Amino acid sequence: MNNKMNLLMFSSDYDKALAGFILANSAKDIGIDVTMFFAFWGLFLMRQPEKTVENDKSFYEKIFSSVTPDDPESLPLSKMNMGGFGKQMLINMMKDKNAPRLIDLIQEARDNKITFFGCKLSMDIMGLKEEELIPELQVITAQDYLRDAINSNIQLFI
Amino acid sequence: MNNKMNLLMFSSDYDKALAGFILANSAKDIGIDVTMFFAFWGLFLMRQPEKTVENDKSFYEKIFSSVTPDDPESLPLSKMNMGGFGKQMLINMMKDKNAPRLIDLIQEARDNKITFFGCKLSMDIMGLKEEELIPELQVITAQDYLRDAINSNIQLFI
Amino acid sequence: MNNKMNLLMFSSDYDKALAGFILANSAKDIGIDVTMFFAFWGLFLMRQPEKTVENDKSFYEKIFSSVTPDDPESLPLSKMNMGGFGKQMLINMMKDKNAPRLIDLIQEARDNKITFFGCKLSMDIMGLKEEELIPELQVITAQDYLRDAINSNIQLFI
Repeated sequence: MNNKMNLLMFSSDYDKALAGFILANSAKDIGIDVTMFFAFWGLFLMRQPEKTVENDKSFYEKIFSSVTPDDPESLPLSKMNMGGFGKQMLINMMKDKNAPRLIDLIQEARDNKITFFGCKLSMDIMGLKEEELIPELQVITAQDYLRDAINSNIQLFI
Repeated sequence: MNNKMNLLMFSSDYDKALAGFILANSAKDIGIDVTMFFAFWGLFLMRQPEKTVENDKSFYEKIFSSVTPDDPESLPLSKMNMGGFGKQMLINMMKDKNAPRLIDLIQEARDNKITFFGCKLSMDIMGLKEEELIPELQVITAQDYLRDAINSNIQLFI
Repeated sequence: MNNKMNLLMFSSDYDKALAGFILANSAKDIGIDVTMFFAFWGLFLMRQPEKTVENDKSFYEKIFSSVTPDDPESLPLSKMNMGGFGKQMLINMMKDKNAPRLIDLIQEARDNKITFFGCKLSMDIMGLKEEELIPELQVITAQDYLRDAINSNIQLFI
């Protein structure tokens, strides 16, 4: 069996995303291979704001695209968000400790060559196009995810 | 070791339930055995609206039974629910892509003979009776869950 | 491989914490070793209200310390909290069935000598001091967590 971790990133909460990327980068640091599978809201973590596509989207897909966050740093907390106040306080506290922001951790994961997978079905439903997401992300099915997860020592649903 | 996945279904969010049943059915398709253990709010996914029992319930159990959803399709999203508007938009987007609804996925899991377990303690506390839930669900303890989970290759808390 | 379970306690929701400690104590009952790693909001479960430190905290850390719950029994539900009404109803239903409260389950886990780990980075960011938390909790890094988790048969993110 491999020395391998598989993270299913379902949530787009800022705090849960921090947890996921801290675990991913820490695992890489100690020689554990990591794959991250982004599904549903988790796909928001892989969006590139400057690459938003407007053509070739249905009515609902356009609304959805415009009301959802396209920048990881603008994602809310899972709790204590308090209309952004709690989030800003956490950001300030992180800055005080020189802790990396979410976008820094995502960049670190990219530099670490962590494998990024995107859920095909979620992308179809939400109308997210492959070219709107980080280029190294590969689109796979739930079955592909399961084949990767079953060969991992650690699987978490975040 | 078996080729086996165990999902602890804690949440009753519509989107997380979709994720759980898509994983369960996809696993079955590629020859992975699946057990789903429904605990706390997750038990709402196993309710049969037409089988609600009113007798033999305490005061709180009756209130609880009447204020909680008894139909999986009426469950809210974990985020972007926006008083049902976000949920309806997601439902419409799923319909546009001919994606199965939650109740279709639950039926598919039943047809796939996926093993359904219900948490005895949660049912006791919430006053849910075995006859209110899908008939093939078996009521087990947390210890039984753990014995099943420890013999699985994948365990997720959803 | 050991007969071992590792729980990453990320959430501070009352209901999710109940689930985590019920699993931990049930595992111990059937001979499974358990470690619980408290990160982010999960650290609130390890606070000792009478040990709150006010000196040696920054401006934000003081605010954070005062607006967050310092007693596990005062934590809200993940859903149906309804400004505390849903929570109180659940508490009453648990009492009717003589089910243990969260603080009882935490005490049982302490008596069971379950291993408690706290996330160093989360504590740094939130300004939580080791002396504010339950004394048997050991502060570790994300890498230490991963080394423990990879040697476990069950890992859950709660």
